[in-house]
Amino acid sequence: MARAKNFNAGPAALPWAALERAQKELLDFGGTGMSVMEHSHRGKAYEAVHNEALQLVRDLLKVPDDYDVLFLQGGASQQFAVVPMNLLEADRSADYVLTGAWSQKAYKEAKLLGKARVAGTTEKDKKFTRIPKQSELELDANAAYVHITTNNTIFGTQWHEFPSTGKVPLVADMSSDIMWRPIDVSKFGLIYAGAQKNLGPSGVTLVIVRKDLVERARKDIPVIFQYRTHAENTSLYNTPPAFGVYILRNVLDVFKQAGGLAAIEAKNREKAQALYAAIDARPDFYRCPVERESRSTMNVVFTLPTEELEAEFIAGAQKQGMIGLKGHRSVGGVRASIYNAAELAWVQALVDYMNDFHKGA
Amino acid sequence: MARAKNFNAGPAALPWAALERAQKELLDFGGTGMSVMEHSHRGKAYEAVHNEALQLVRDLLKVPDDYDVLFLQGGASQQFAVVPMNLLEADRSADYVLTGAWSQKAYKEAKLLGKARVAGTTEKDKKFTRIPKQSELELDANAAYVHITTNNTIFGTQWHEFPSTGKVPLVADMSSDIMWRPIDVSKFGLIYAGAQKNLGPSGVTLVIVRKDLVERARKDIPVIFQYRTHAENTSLYNTPPAFGVYILRNVLDVFKQAGGLAAIEAKNREKAQALYAAIDARPDFYRCPVERESRSTMNVVFTLPTEELEAEFIAGAQKQGMIGLKGHRSVGGVRASIYNAAELAWVQALVDYMNDFHKGA
Repeated sequence: MARAKNFNAGPAALPWAALERAQKELLDFGGTGMSVMEHSHRGKAYEAVHNEALQLVRDLLKVPDDYDVLFLQGGASQQFAVVPMNLLEADRSADYVLTGAWSQKAYKEAKLLGKARVAGTTEKDKKFTRIPKQSELELDANAAYVHITTNNTIFGTQWHEFPSTGKVPLVADMSSDIMWRPIDVSKFGLIYAGAQKNLGPSGVTLVIVRKDLVERARKDIPVIFQYRTHAENTSLYNTPPAFGVYILRNVLDVFKQAGGLAAIEAKNREKAQALYAAIDARPDFYRCPVERESRSTMNVVFTLPTEELEAEFIAGAQKQGMIGLKGHRSVGGVRASIYNAAELAWVQALVDYMNDFHKGA
Repeated sequence: MARAKNFNAGPAALPWAALERAQKELLDFGGTGMSVMEHSHRGKAYEAVHNEALQLVRDLLKVPDDYDVLFLQGGASQQFAVVPMNLLEADRSADYVLTGAWSQKAYKEAKLLGKARVAGTTEKDKKFTRIPKQSELELDANAAYVHITTNNTIFGTQWHEFPSTGKVPLVADMSSDIMWRPIDVSKFGLIYAGAQKNLGPSGVTLVIVRKDLVERARKDIPVIFQYRTHAENTSLYNTPPAFGVYILRNVLDVFKQAGGLAAIEAKNREKAQALYAAIDARPDFYRCPVERESRSTMNVVFTLPTEELEAEFIAGAQKQGMIGLKGHRSVGGVRASIYNAAELAWVQALVDYMNDFHKGA
């Protein structure tokens, strides 16, 4: 079967070279006569992979020394709870900026665990079709932290400039756009991301957290949920999701070989610009509901004149090997997710198809 | 490289056929032009794997209909906290039977979350070298649950008969011996197990829990940690560790093809008997510190007359392709972990080596 042009929202496409490498050594990792899955997480063979993966995160994102890099489990959904468990104090509240379904879920877990308030939202007026401006945020100067979701997979919006939060730590769920470009990690108190969009397979969660937050985080929560437990044990307190970390290592190595995040960003911008240009060229037919300055480079959402045309569009694309284009069930429409590993050639094929489909309709 | 004779304590050997299957279709799963890692967890291709894996658990363990089968993340270490979060009530305490390092860790998390008491331990008199008898347990008839660790990887002990707990639900960490043989699931309120010993790769946690416990479990804890969340969503509330579940499916299918758990048990008993016979045949040289009736069929621990001989034994074994034989750092000695996927031929090679080593010493 020819390789699919994979526009899945996540789990999503992975770099071919990362998968080929995994296939080649799946039964015999580095001449050890075992699969990497069969190695002890306390052994040298796995430890080298683990440490290389941690270092690749540091190198690619230029993570400052006063930050810990952790590999955890449970995805962003677990971090929705673990962040407030660690950082929410009894006498303070946390500020949540709501820009879509995921930030709403994060807010809900925080409210259950302590005090949390909405510091900004674009739900009511714009149904999450834009990111709020700094001037719209009502930030509490005494908040334990401010939480944002940097990219919203369902609504196709993305924070292109991060909010200023003064001395209050900025906590960001970057699950769907981590490493899409270089960022200044020092602007954040904590970054978390499920791996399954830009970094690897599902089952690995990346957390980058400033050491002073790890140190002052709560100690009256289960040991397994304390960031310090994992920071003190190089993410080997308990058995890590070893194969997931191994694939993530393979993926990050591909990014490094490709020239790092600046090169990744250039490719991502080219893909997004090609798609938005195809939409904007036929405004009576294709329509992106997202305000221009909030458009996501990762999830390009658009509608066609009717639901019937949308269904026809998606079915026709599938026949040409383009999969995963159906919008989220809560909003409908079309969604092309073009994470780091989505090929430019796939996007070009989709653009051609959009042009042909418009002509034929 | 020849396949290693893998005696790792976990992550450990996986069935060759399960790995070969994974390698064959790693780049193109079922003719979809994508790796199984690249599929959406909401798509038909992955969903079929997910449901087959759930059904294989039910079939192999004959799980009654009034139990939910869940695939979670975080390993047993996370369940140490999640069990009491769900089941420990403010006005009741939980009983913990301590038989080694893992049950001690489970007890520690429970104490942090509520009331927990030690209902039995073999630490003081016997340094965990045996499992307590029913008559030694001091069970609280009003306990929220009784917690045991069915197999102790470090000390090489195993519960061969499970304790009677009356109406109090029995909660069992079966991480290191789940599916080593058929069991009567109806005797348990909840069973949990990290996959990385008997079932698959690390990163997947199996939970089997009686539905009435799911229903009455606490609702004032984060949504992500409530068993009901995952029970109500077929373990697809959030993105599952999809590749791990896929490998687990492959592994369980191998068990099914081999004749199910009765056949697995026969093979496991043969392996364990061969090793213990080799130890017992030379009692002045090889010595198993575990009381006979508590000996584990999964982790066979033994010592040699001196630490120098142990080091020589382990190094010599490694030269013959037998790896993972070093005892846990906290107890030393030799440990042969012979989980479901460890081959009888490997055990026979180890027995031969033990005989030769004794002769040469």
